[in-house]
Amino acid sequence: MNAYLLSVGDELLIGQTVNTNASFISEKLTQIGVNVENQTSIGDNENQMLQKFREAFDYYDLIIVTGGLGPTHDDITKKSIVKFFDTELVMNNEVLGDITSFFQKRGRVVTPSNKDQALVPNIGEVIRNSRGTAPGIWIEKDDRIFISLPGVPFEMENMIESFVIPNLIEKLDGNTNSILTTNLLTTGIPESILFERLGNLDELLEGAKMAFLPNQFGVRMRITVSESTREATKDKMTQIEQKIRTLAGRYIYGKNDDTLESVVAKLLGERGLTIAVAESCTGGLISNRLTNISGSSSYFERAFITYSNGAKVEHLKIDEDLVQKYGAVSLEVARLMADGVKAVSGTDIGLAATGIMGPTGATPDKPVGLVYIGICDEKMCTAREFRFGDSRLMNKDRASQAALEILRRHLLGIPYEE
Amino acid sequence: MNAYLLSVGDELLIGQTVNTNASFISEKLTQIGVNVENQTSIGDNENQMLQKFREAFDYYDLIIVTGGLGPTHDDITKKSIVKFFDTELVMNNEVLGDITSFFQKRGRVVTPSNKDQALVPNIGEVIRNSRGTAPGIWIEKDDRIFISLPGVPFEMENMIESFVIPNLIEKLDGNTNSILTTNLLTTGIPESILFERLGNLDELLEGAKMAFLPNQFGVRMRITVSESTREATKDKMTQIEQKIRTLAGRYIYGKNDDTLESVVAKLLGERGLTIAVAESCTGGLISNRLTNISGSSSYFERAFITYSNGAKVEHLKIDEDLVQKYGAVSLEVARLMADGVKAVSGTDIGLAATGIMGPTGATPDKPVGLVYIGICDEKMCTAREFRFGDSRLMNKDRASQAALEILRRHLLGIPYEE
Repeated sequence: MNAYLLSVGDELLIGQTVNTNASFISEKLTQIGVNVENQTSIGDNENQMLQKFREAFDYYDLIIVTGGLGPTHDDITKKSIVKFFDTELVMNNEVLGDITSFFQKRGRVVTPSNKDQALVPNIGEVIRNSRGTAPGIWIEKDDRIFISLPGVPFEMENMIESFVIPNLIEKLDGNTNSILTTNLLTTGIPESILFERLGNLDELLEGAKMAFLPNQFGVRMRITVSESTREATKDKMTQIEQKIRTLAGRYIYGKNDDTLESVVAKLLGERGLTIAVAESCTGGLISNRLTNISGSSSYFERAFITYSNGAKVEHLKIDEDLVQKYGAVSLEVARLMADGVKAVSGTDIGLAATGIMGPTGATPDKPVGLVYIGICDEKMCTAREFRFGDSRLMNKDRASQAALEILRRHLLGIPYEE
Repeated sequence: MNAYLLSVGDELLIGQTVNTNASFISEKLTQIGVNVENQTSIGDNENQMLQKFREAFDYYDLIIVTGGLGPTHDDITKKSIVKFFDTELVMNNEVLGDITSFFQKRGRVVTPSNKDQALVPNIGEVIRNSRGTAPGIWIEKDDRIFISLPGVPFEMENMIESFVIPNLIEKLDGNTNSILTTNLLTTGIPESILFERLGNLDELLEGAKMAFLPNQFGVRMRITVSESTREATKDKMTQIEQKIRTLAGRYIYGKNDDTLESVVAKLLGERGLTIAVAESCTGGLISNRLTNISGSSSYFERAFITYSNGAKVEHLKIDEDLVQKYGAVSLEVARLMADGVKAVSGTDIGLAATGIMGPTGATPDKPVGLVYIGICDEKMCTAREFRFGDSRLMNKDRASQAALEILRRHLLGIPYEE
């Protein structure tokens, strides 16, 4: 099955919006063995849209159109669909119900233009939108599948994952190689060292594909296996994953949609442990990530963002002389902060970060990017030094990731040293 | 002048790479009055490329192709150009010199495949690449301009800015309008009410264009003015902006690249005021945003993330009976938290957030999305209620935005009420 993606919107053509929809949909289609051959973006222009519909119908099995469905836009996608398929708009009561309850929940009035969004082409099947007001549509004609979705990524992504992909898998059943992609997520190891650890990749992969995708949070290994049956694909993926875990398992904190905070949350929950955090340089980011997980109140007790030395001394009960002696950015103070926040909060674990995020604040001894992470429980109390880069926001990301990884390894009893 | 952008590369079609090249080039072309009508991405496939060349030559004045020029790719763009223009490849000694010195500088050997990159189509003008090894090409034929550039953003961007744009401006001289785009950033006002406030848009804009772009942080108004001279464009933009500010100025916190935290940081700095934050439901996000700004230690004193009631009572010195009486998520406790954190920290301002972010934690009286923001200084102490949606992460974003906006209006003396 080959596919054509059409993105509609002037904001794409003036360069204001980067087209992340095309890459999102392409990745999802590739994973189920659909071959995306063309991604095209055009403006809010009915003639061009109709021309693209005609061209696409000549050649592609699957056509997905995103955008042009909003209430304040000229509703050109719906109009164009009606013209192209020679049909008419009809009121869909299910969709009208969705829209009405969407606004009621938010305590807002449904305007006539909102109601108009429940008018759908009288052909194909409606794709309901649980995150917004514009419905999508799935049309099958002349052995082609034509899908229209809203352009808002948050809405479109949900409709792709919960409706489009499952329905396409059903259509494809047996007519394609089974393709499986797994992402193994690592942190705390540079790409080159990870690469060396894995040894001979051809032997490891036996025809499967692998990409190393680094960013400030770590290196993602994307493995793609394609075999003739679903079982063969699954088996091969399991084998490869096991081999990789034998070689570099300690650096792998999760896979696919896992986040380091979700992994740590699960570990804390399983062990019934509580945590308190003392943040200086990270300014709340570690706590923000820990509390992004639903149910975090069962393990996250409290945090102090002690930006000033006074706050460190006052709330974390750190001896002022020691802060003066070692400096606020030091191994010793990181350890004292972790120990202090644990004691003050009465939690099982204390986690702390102090450092220089830049661009200002460096001294001859202490450059921008220098960060110390401390961790203590009832049995141990330690801290580690990190040297990151020049970018303030990247440094905050990296420091928060290092802190959560130190916590993960602590919970699993994996030493942090290489 | 209308334009067609063709991006070449399998990595785009499997969704591995987001096409930032298309938005970059589109923005630059829009700024000089070139009308980008189509952005297309295809894989490394010669037949498809030749077909796209033919289609583009039928209709567009300007065709820009990026990608397919690397030494490790099948060099399909160069091959396709040679076929399409019926020419041949010749060694270009200037380019060969560039490539040789590029590798010498890095202490690396020039391989035969690197040398092959100095082979260029024997037509048009070479665009030299100061940041890499693949040259570009500028071809004029049949009143069309055809440009090929490497796909590596860092290399392509430099060639666009230093060669393509200046040369296009020369070609366009006098034949195009000057175009200017400004984004006005609002928060705390729904799109529909903002729209109503602005009244008759046709009268307001007098031919300029405006788009309303909402997300969880607020509504962005994008205004695009196009007039015959640069002065006329600037004057008209200034007029429109002034009119909009008269009608809805209190909701506009900044423009273009401003963030709410950068605006608030500037206001706090100018006034020499310090702030402390007490966060419950936002879990550190407000503090994280305030400390994303370099130099934040001059105004950001400390923060408490008091997830548990015990922490609220202990650190913010809130009467436990009042927490019991009103509940931790209440107008009263938000106010007490803001007042408490100000007193404990000795700052000029205290800011606080408490709420239910979901998906769990709702009670019959207090639904998911209910948030209270408190703010106090030496003269006043108040709190406001908000009702957001169902998504935990969006609710955190919205609550942090509401808190920073309340702070901004407080600093400027703008009442929060509509």
